[in-house]
Amino acid sequence: MQNVDCIIRADYLLTMEGDLPVIKDGAVAVSGSAIVDAGTFADVSRNYSSKKILDGKDRVVFPGLINTHTHAAMVYFRGLADDLPLMEWLQNHIWPAEGKWMNEEFVSDAVELACLEMLKAGVTTYSDMYFFQNAAGKKLEKIGMRGVLGAGVIDFPFTGYAKSPDDYFVNAENLINNWKNSELVFPCIAPHAVYTCGPDNYKRANVLSEKYNVPVHTHLAETQFEVAECLNRYGKTPVEYFESIGLLTERLSAAHCVWLTDNEIELLAKRRVGVSHCIESNLKLASGFAPVAKMLKAGVKVSLGTDGAASNNDLSILGEMSTAAKVHKAFSGDPAAVDSKTTLLMATRNGAEIMGLGDKAGSIKAGKKADLVIANLSQPHLTPIYDIYSHMTYCLRPSDIETVMVNGKFVVENGKLTTMDEQEILDKARAWQKKIKG
Amino acid sequence: MQNVDCIIRADYLLTMEGDLPVIKDGAVAVSGSAIVDAGTFADVSRNYSSKKILDGKDRVVFPGLINTHTHAAMVYFRGLADDLPLMEWLQNHIWPAEGKWMNEEFVSDAVELACLEMLKAGVTTYSDMYFFQNAAGKKLEKIGMRGVLGAGVIDFPFTGYAKSPDDYFVNAENLINNWKNSELVFPCIAPHAVYTCGPDNYKRANVLSEKYNVPVHTHLAETQFEVAECLNRYGKTPVEYFESIGLLTERLSAAHCVWLTDNEIELLAKRRVGVSHCIESNLKLASGFAPVAKMLKAGVKVSLGTDGAASNNDLSILGEMSTAAKVHKAFSGDPAAVDSKTTLLMATRNGAEIMGLGDKAGSIKAGKKADLVIANLSQPHLTPIYDIYSHMTYCLRPSDIETVMVNGKFVVENGKLTTMDEQEILDKARAWQKKIKG
Repeated sequence: MQNVDCIIRADYLLTMEGDLPVIKDGAVAVSGSAIVDAGTFADVSRNYSSKKILDGKDRVVFPGLINTHTHAAMVYFRGLADDLPLMEWLQNHIWPAEGKWMNEEFVSDAVELACLEMLKAGVTTYSDMYFFQNAAGKKLEKIGMRGVLGAGVIDFPFTGYAKSPDDYFVNAENLINNWKNSELVFPCIAPHAVYTCGPDNYKRANVLSEKYNVPVHTHLAETQFEVAECLNRYGKTPVEYFESIGLLTERLSAAHCVWLTDNEIELLAKRRVGVSHCIESNLKLASGFAPVAKMLKAGVKVSLGTDGAASNNDLSILGEMSTAAKVHKAFSGDPAAVDSKTTLLMATRNGAEIMGLGDKAGSIKAGKKADLVIANLSQPHLTPIYDIYSHMTYCLRPSDIETVMVNGKFVVENGKLTTMDEQEILDKARAWQKKIKG
Repeated sequence: MQNVDCIIRADYLLTMEGDLPVIKDGAVAVSGSAIVDAGTFADVSRNYSSKKILDGKDRVVFPGLINTHTHAAMVYFRGLADDLPLMEWLQNHIWPAEGKWMNEEFVSDAVELACLEMLKAGVTTYSDMYFFQNAAGKKLEKIGMRGVLGAGVIDFPFTGYAKSPDDYFVNAENLINNWKNSELVFPCIAPHAVYTCGPDNYKRANVLSEKYNVPVHTHLAETQFEVAECLNRYGKTPVEYFESIGLLTERLSAAHCVWLTDNEIELLAKRRVGVSHCIESNLKLASGFAPVAKMLKAGVKVSLGTDGAASNNDLSILGEMSTAAKVHKAFSGDPAAVDSKTTLLMATRNGAEIMGLGDKAGSIKAGKKADLVIANLSQPHLTPIYDIYSHMTYCLRPSDIETVMVNGKFVVENGKLTTMDEQEILDKARAWQKKIKG
């Protein structure tokens, strides 16, 4: 009988391993930052003992949700400008706001709010594309959340961050070196998009990615505008262009992928590119409907992202799951498409694997890090229960999330953040709100 | 200075009247079952006093949300069968379950759970199509919720409810007479659909509707199957067919309306037919995308419905708002389509007007019934706030609903039902769950 730090019991345990079983009266044994064992409570309690055993009545335990594409600090622009044509939204609202406010202090403060919102909604890891990521990394360590922080790259200078392409890469390499011993912060390189980054910067990002074995996180084929722009500049669609400059590798995490031909879908599958599907952002900005059912059928690894809160307007992966599972049924004309198991798989294991964290997160398995979520099922909107996967995708809400563990540490208990003061984070956000739009 | 039963103050008051203003530091004066006045707190408190003044810090007050199409009792089949082809879902799961379980006791019990879920999510009125509506009406009076209860009509007998078409109409007329003095229960007639009701039953329903001035609530143009079936039987599309038998009137509340031609949209606008848009059900069952942006542009009165929980899988109008506002941007290719004000209008005033309750519900106005919702805005996912309408549509969640008043009575306080025991309702649902799928 081995002693462990805690045993988390649950009426329903979803490990997201193997053929995605439902383990009734399951349990997870955790010691330090890691999962020691998972299975039925009968089996786990036969081999492990602990002073701390969490009761699992009316509870479901699942791997922490993974948000594979966001710009966390943009949470301070949530609802700043909505229901506008895309270019008006970008040029008259979002870019001026970013130009005026985005600096290290802004990112450092805003990331707190984003992490608070995500952790309370059961998101334990996010993959980000932004600037000043050292500041974000410090906050992740403080709040206790896992993040893949992409150092943004664009062709033009950005006051206070980078005067030249060289500066972006120096910043990125520094970021990678700064956090190489962190258990929570995983830097990567994030060239923005084909319409803001030329081939030199993309190739350079790819070299850096290979050198340090970190992902390349970028936007790809998000809008028809982007496809037209790319055809105009390079005579190729974005995917064809990426293929031609060697970007399509297993290290590529491509956000959106809305406008793809069937051949391009096959190519993404063949090259083992990871796709971050951001359904709510794509809908709200009228970017279009990504061919997710086709991508899944072709074997493309698809995960879920919220995009920034300025275009969503929240950071809830449960929301993305529900929306994606429903929309792709209508879009593909098949009510069996993107079923509830597949949806949860996209939100967990697929996400971890795409971000290079497949050995650490995304499922509940001995040896992986303990990133776990406990949700309370005794709610009217979750009653009755016939199929727990269906409830995970179509019914579960962020407010049902009770307990969240990241890297073996309880960061949310009884729905409250344990590591920082929630009210202080909200107050700080409101002070910024007054500055941004008094 | 007039004394009133209570004054509800709020940082943001959305009356949904006139040009849909945002009243900052607003207040609503309520006496008995009715709204006495609404405006700024300064104005209201100049004219009215009360022993009970609710503090409005970080709160938004809006009219109770209106769910214009559901089958409330089907909440007991929530998640019973998902991700299946439509006919397999209906024929092998839903119809057998209904055939086996649906009776007066089932409806009476299940409606409790549906009302609990809806009230807690800020829905104060729902429009239903089902059977055994007297049992539902009794529960509405007990729990304190408003409902437009449609007595279902189909061509074939239904054991325990109706042996013949005559029985359906006798039941409907009895229902109408039973509740004519109720302040909460408003009966109507609900012929099911063109593929289950012949022209005689539709015409008879229309006569009854005219006689008692109650709505005709039906499914219309939901699926391509229905359109094909209708063309096959009558040589007309469902809308053309309805026009030919005189069904297209202001009293018609037509659920779904997914498959419409541009001419049919014009006709629905001209005939002042009310449409209940059920986006999440339409997506999940792969029925298709209703042309809502076009309908709104043509002047059709569009409201929102959840459909039954077996095909959604919840009864949240906030969820429908968020999904509809996003999906129709992508579907119409216009990120300015179905904006946040329009979305809330669909979920409130439009809904009330379509159901014949325009003088009683759907907006906050002196003389209307006091159906009010208070939501708490001091949440991470609602911070910061730049535009309250945007937050209503894109960010607000059922868990933010704190207080709900129906007909002047507080039925939800601090997020808890005041009129019945929540746990008893959940326990009853679980007992049924075991019977239905042990």
